[in-house]
Amino acid sequence: MSAAPESASFADRFAAGRAELGPLVFGLDPSGALLVEWGLGDDADGLERFVDIVLEAARGRVAVAKPQSAFYERHGWPGIRALSRLVDALRSDGVLVLLDAKRGDVGSTNAAYAEAYLGAGAPMPVDALTVTAYLGLAAMGPLVERAAGSGSALFVVTRSSNPEGRALQTARQADGPTVEAAMLAAIGALNADLAPGGIGPVGAVFAPTHGEAEVDLVSMNGLFLAPGLGAQGATVQDVAECFATCPDRVLPSASRSLLSAGPDAAALADAVQAMAEEVRKALA
Amino acid sequence: MSAAPESASFADRFAAGRAELGPLVFGLDPSGALLVEWGLGDDADGLERFVDIVLEAARGRVAVAKPQSAFYERHGWPGIRALSRLVDALRSDGVLVLLDAKRGDVGSTNAAYAEAYLGAGAPMPVDALTVTAYLGLAAMGPLVERAAGSGSALFVVTRSSNPEGRALQTARQADGPTVEAAMLAAIGALNADLAPGGIGPVGAVFAPTHGEAEVDLVSMNGLFLAPGLGAQGATVQDVAECFATCPDRVLPSASRSLLSAGPDAAALADAVQAMAEEVRKALA
Repeated sequence: MSAAPESASFADRFAAGRAELGPLVFGLDPSGALLVEWGLGDDADGLERFVDIVLEAARGRVAVAKPQSAFYERHGWPGIRALSRLVDALRSDGVLVLLDAKRGDVGSTNAAYAEAYLGAGAPMPVDALTVTAYLGLAAMGPLVERAAGSGSALFVVTRSSNPEGRALQTARQADGPTVEAAMLAAIGALNADLAPGGIGPVGAVFAPTHGEAEVDLVSMNGLFLAPGLGAQGATVQDVAECFATCPDRVLPSASRSLLSAGPDAAALADAVQAMAEEVRKALA
Repeated sequence: MSAAPESASFADRFAAGRAELGPLVFGLDPSGALLVEWGLGDDADGLERFVDIVLEAARGRVAVAKPQSAFYERHGWPGIRALSRLVDALRSDGVLVLLDAKRGDVGSTNAAYAEAYLGAGAPMPVDALTVTAYLGLAAMGPLVERAAGSGSALFVVTRSSNPEGRALQTARQADGPTVEAAMLAAIGALNADLAPGGIGPVGAVFAPTHGEAEVDLVSMNGLFLAPGLGAQGATVQDVAECFATCPDRVLPSASRSLLSAGPDAAALADAVQAMAEEVRKALA
């Protein structure tokens, strides 16, 4: 699908996919409740059938898909095997895979996470990975390096969609800025170094739902994952307003609001296509 | 091994194991470099052989083992299958398993992580799990609930062992306290509610290495995982000093400094036993 070569950066590959299908990210969150609602059974076999259905619905309709690791981990290693099949098949179909796993640790452990998920040598290579930097963005070095070297991307949780995280994210560091502002600035510094004058490999998870004072998003020179379209309370209009200064850099994600159209693959595909169209127009 | 019944709380089961073998936590971090150094090969087969060796060394020598998930994830689903075998076998041998996975997300996703790792119905049940609360401790509800209901525990990263996390962890929230102090207080409130007058199911990862002003650890009424004995710079004496007010609540963890004694299982067992003895005396 993508017009950009495989060796291109994630930003370039996303831009190509966006030009064709718009920026909607299809969230693939097979909760136990959903598997039951779909009549598949809340077990590894049901998960495999979920994979078949969403593959059919995603193909040719979205540029990016975002499986949430937790919902596969809850089936143990057979769940991870199903996730591997999903990831491989999506990428073969030309869909970029953003694995939502919120990994993050000290540097030596982050090197192992990088080896797990980024680059051709990984057992389950994805195009982008969400990470959490409670242990500091500077500890993310091995992940940043490997993302930059393999044309993949990281999305660092900066401003989350849920209210419970705001006290921490708005705490003020001794050097002045809030935690989230310091994170945006540090990401910007990495991107300026890794992709001077372009869009770098380090993005931010940034929720458009809190109606707070505007922050400078443009100078981060990176992409934004905007979570929670629909079920978590953000509307397409919220996304368009929050990212008005850089509409071409935002990846709005919807999961539950789309999956509720299943389990019929054709009905699900229609719902995905309709929302992709709506999102594409709002962020044109 | 444990004198406490299986339905007992994690704190009670740890206390029983500690009385017999001391509080040392054996960190099981099979990095690629270690697998090669041990002559096992950096692949899933090598990982399975690593599992066999550390099982032999851990049995009857430590009360708690701590596999770091990243080092198993880097072998894809066969790595998770090896981790499952390790977890099962350790628990059959009476060793408590503290899975170091630093999971954490919004509430609905945390519910899925709880289903993955906590309680008898989980595909890979562990005795305790590390979590990261950048999205707020209040979002951890489903994990806290399931830990409390299943006699397992959570360890929330509060003060990490690496220097890169300190700016965030010492940032000051709008309501006054630093991020780490607010985290300790919020954990204390949860434990007071869940285990009045006792040691609750929510612990903290708290590094003894920063030489900072003393904080009140006692009133958290929970356990502490002290990471990085040896390779990450903390000495047994650092641990004893940092936790002088509650020496019976700390779980000091060592990994690389022990694993360097392998791959000979007997030599590794000797190293584990020697450090367990040293730690037991220092924290008597």
